[in-house]
Amino acid sequence: MPLMTSWVPGANSPDTDFPLNNLPYGVFSTDEMDERCGVAIGDMIFDCARAEEEGLIALSDSPLFDVPFWNEVMEAGPEVWAALRARLVELLGDEANRDAVAPLLVPMAEAVLHMPMLVSEYTDFYAGRHHATNVGTMFRGAENALPPNWLHIPIGYNGRASSVVVSGTDVRRPWGQLKSPDHDLPAFLPCRRFDLELEMGAIVGTASEGPVTVTEANEMIFGYVLLNDWSARDIQAWEYQPLGPFQAKATATTISPWIVTRAALEPFKCDTPEREFELLDHLKDAGPMLYDIDLRVTLAPEGKPATEIAHTNYREMYYSSAQQLAHHTTSGCPMTPGDLLGSGTISGAEKHERGSLLELSWGGKEPLTLDSGETRTFLEDGDTLTLTGAALGDGYRIGFGPCTGKVLPALEDPYAR
Amino acid sequence: MPLMTSWVPGANSPDTDFPLNNLPYGVFSTDEMDERCGVAIGDMIFDCARAEEEGLIALSDSPLFDVPFWNEVMEAGPEVWAALRARLVELLGDEANRDAVAPLLVPMAEAVLHMPMLVSEYTDFYAGRHHATNVGTMFRGAENALPPNWLHIPIGYNGRASSVVVSGTDVRRPWGQLKSPDHDLPAFLPCRRFDLELEMGAIVGTASEGPVTVTEANEMIFGYVLLNDWSARDIQAWEYQPLGPFQAKATATTISPWIVTRAALEPFKCDTPEREFELLDHLKDAGPMLYDIDLRVTLAPEGKPATEIAHTNYREMYYSSAQQLAHHTTSGCPMTPGDLLGSGTISGAEKHERGSLLELSWGGKEPLTLDSGETRTFLEDGDTLTLTGAALGDGYRIGFGPCTGKVLPALEDPYAR
Repeated sequence: MPLMTSWVPGANSPDTDFPLNNLPYGVFSTDEMDERCGVAIGDMIFDCARAEEEGLIALSDSPLFDVPFWNEVMEAGPEVWAALRARLVELLGDEANRDAVAPLLVPMAEAVLHMPMLVSEYTDFYAGRHHATNVGTMFRGAENALPPNWLHIPIGYNGRASSVVVSGTDVRRPWGQLKSPDHDLPAFLPCRRFDLELEMGAIVGTASEGPVTVTEANEMIFGYVLLNDWSARDIQAWEYQPLGPFQAKATATTISPWIVTRAALEPFKCDTPEREFELLDHLKDAGPMLYDIDLRVTLAPEGKPATEIAHTNYREMYYSSAQQLAHHTTSGCPMTPGDLLGSGTISGAEKHERGSLLELSWGGKEPLTLDSGETRTFLEDGDTLTLTGAALGDGYRIGFGPCTGKVLPALEDPYAR
Repeated sequence: MPLMTSWVPGANSPDTDFPLNNLPYGVFSTDEMDERCGVAIGDMIFDCARAEEEGLIALSDSPLFDVPFWNEVMEAGPEVWAALRARLVELLGDEANRDAVAPLLVPMAEAVLHMPMLVSEYTDFYAGRHHATNVGTMFRGAENALPPNWLHIPIGYNGRASSVVVSGTDVRRPWGQLKSPDHDLPAFLPCRRFDLELEMGAIVGTASEGPVTVTEANEMIFGYVLLNDWSARDIQAWEYQPLGPFQAKATATTISPWIVTRAALEPFKCDTPEREFELLDHLKDAGPMLYDIDLRVTLAPEGKPATEIAHTNYREMYYSSAQQLAHHTTSGCPMTPGDLLGSGTISGAEKHERGSLLELSWGGKEPLTLDSGETRTFLEDGDTLTLTGAALGDGYRIGFGPCTGKVLPALEDPYAR
C-alpha cells in the first residue's frame, strides 16, 4: 500500500511515525485542555472530543471521546472502529475538510500524552523462541533450554494491571527479597539486576465468555503498542519457583502512548515461523497474524548520548497475539475490553537482536560497551531506555511513538514515612 | 466478647451467621428492587441504599450504597468504615430505632445475592504449610517438598479478576491442553482432574503506592470472604512450568456473598505458627493477624445428600493476609481498593483437614468414600461443593454465608456456535 496523503503539516514526511495510513489513538492534554482522546497525524493531534462535540464525528448517541481512555470506543465494537477510521481518513485526508478540521488540531509539541486506556487486566507471554532458548540455556543448559510444553502452547502468566504506565514515566529501582548465590539466606535489598524486556502489547477490544478460535481472537484485537516489561532478575530468580514471576515484574510495565490499530498494520501482516510440532487445532495458524515491525532499543546513561543496544523485528515471534488470546480463553476465562497482552520478549537469532540485557550481556558475563565507552550488564541508575518501532512502508512508516523510561535510584529506606 | 443483641428477627439465634456482632456487607436485589448494598442481620438484609436515601445513614456527600458494589465505601476510607459500623450497631441494636428501621429490612429468603464488589485485581497465594508440604511431597518427594523460598516469602501469583464469581454460580468443567503421562504429545480435552481449593479471600480497601509495612497492610484490609479457587490439576501440571498456573486457575474462583469486616473478626485474632526461620524485618509479624475461623467443605453428588469432606481452620496458615499484602507491595506494585488476595489452600495436619481433593485423595490414589457410598478422587459433573466458615463466639457465630458452586459438564464442542 502506498502513502495516503494528508493536508496536515508533517503527515506526508517519510520520517513521521504518523502518516494518514496510521491514525493511532492516544489520550492527551494541554495547558488549556483536560485529558481527552486524540489521533496522531504528522506533527499534530486531532482532538476527537471537540470533533464529536461539533458534530464532525457522530458514531454514537453517548459521547465516546471526552474521556481519558479509549475503552468506550473499544466497547462500541468493530463496526464503530471501522466507521471511525473511515471518517478520520475523510477528515484528515480530504483537503475540502481543511477549514473545518484545522482548528481542531493541536501541535503535538504542546501536548502531554497519558495512558491511552484503562488497563483491565494484564497478561504477559513468553512466546519468542530465541528469547526462551537463550534464557533456558543460561538457566538449564542448551539441551533443556525449551520446557516440554513450549512448542505446544504459548506460555503466559497474569501480570499486574495497576503497574502499567505510559511512556515517559520514571521507573524507580525496586527493593525485593533476593538471595545471592554465595549466601545461605535471603536478604531484602535494592534490585541489582534490573532489566528491560522488549515486547509488543496487544489490546483486547471486545469481550468474550467462552473459548474463542484464533480467527475470532484476531478480530477481538483493537490494536498494538510497544511494551517494556521492566524485570528485576535477581528478585525473579529467588521468587519464581514454583508459581512464576510476581514482584519481579510488578514495579512497572511501560507502554507507548499511541495504540496503532489492526487496520493500520494490515498491509504488514506476516506468517509465524515454521512449526517444529504441528499445533493442536484450537491454536493452529489461521492466516498471517504476526506483523513485520522493525524494533529498536537505545540506552542513554545520565547526561550521555544514546546507544542502540538491540534491533529486531516482531515477526520473530513463534506465536501471534491472536494465538495467545485464543489460548487465554481455552478454560472459559472471560476477556474484557482493555485487557493488555504482552507478546513476550522479542529476540532474533543474532546477538544484536536480543530484546533484554539478560540476553545481551549473557547473564551479566559479557558486558556491553556503549558509545560513551561505559559498559553495561544490567541497568544503572539514571539510564534512559527508549523502545521504538515501526512497520516500514514504501516511503512512509507506521510508527508507535517512543516507549521510554528513566531508571531512578532505589529509595534509601522504602519504609521511611 | 459476648453476643450483642439486636431487635431484628433471627439475629440473636446461636445458629445464625449474622448476629449484630457480624454486620457483613453484600449486594442484593429482589423482584422489586435493583441491585444495591445491604447488610446481613439475622434472617434479614438491611437496605443501606434506602437508609441513605431516607437520611438514616449520612456518611458522605455523594451516595455510597445505591450501587451494586462496596467499592465506594472502601474508597471512602477507614474513618467511614468505622462510622458505618457504629451507626449500624445503633440502628439495628437499639430498640428505639425499630420503627424507623424495620421497613428497610428485606427477608433474606426473598433476595438474590450478587458479587459484593468489583474485583480490581486478583492475587492468589500458596501460604499454607500443610498444603504446600502435601503438594510438594506428591510432586517432588518428601525431602524437597517445600521450595527453598517458601519459609521466607509468601509465594503468590496473579490470577484473573474477570473469573471471580459469587456463590451459587454454576461452574463449567473447562477444556484445556494437557498431556497424559502415557502419551508423548499433548491433546485438547475436557479437564479430568477438576478440584477445589478451600481458601479465605482478603479484600484490599485502601490504595497504596510504595511498599507498606505489615501493620499498614493490615489496616488496608476491608474484610474477608470465603474463596474456592477451582483448579484444573491436569491442565496445571502441563502448563505451569516455568511461569506458573494460568488457564488451570482461570475458569472460575467463587467467593461467598458477604464481606465480613476486619472489625467483626477482631475478637478472633490469633498468631501465625512458630517460624522455622526468622522472617526478614519487612515481613515480621506485628501482632496477631490471622483469625480463628472454623472452615468446612461439603460435597453433594447430583440429587444426593452432602458429605463433609474437609474441616480445618484459617489459623493453620503460615502467613497472614497482612503479610501477603506487605510482600505484594515490596516492588512498589500499586494496590487498589477491590483487590482480592486468596490466602492459599488451607489444610491442617490431619487427613480430614485437607482443603483440596488433590490432597484428600493423595493425587487420586486414595479415593474418598461419600456418605452415599460413591467415591471421589476429583470432582464429577453434577457435584455441588459448599464451603462454610465462621468465627465461633460464646453462643454466637460470625459466619460468611455459604460459598457454593455446582460443576456443569464440559461443553461437547467448545467452539460450536
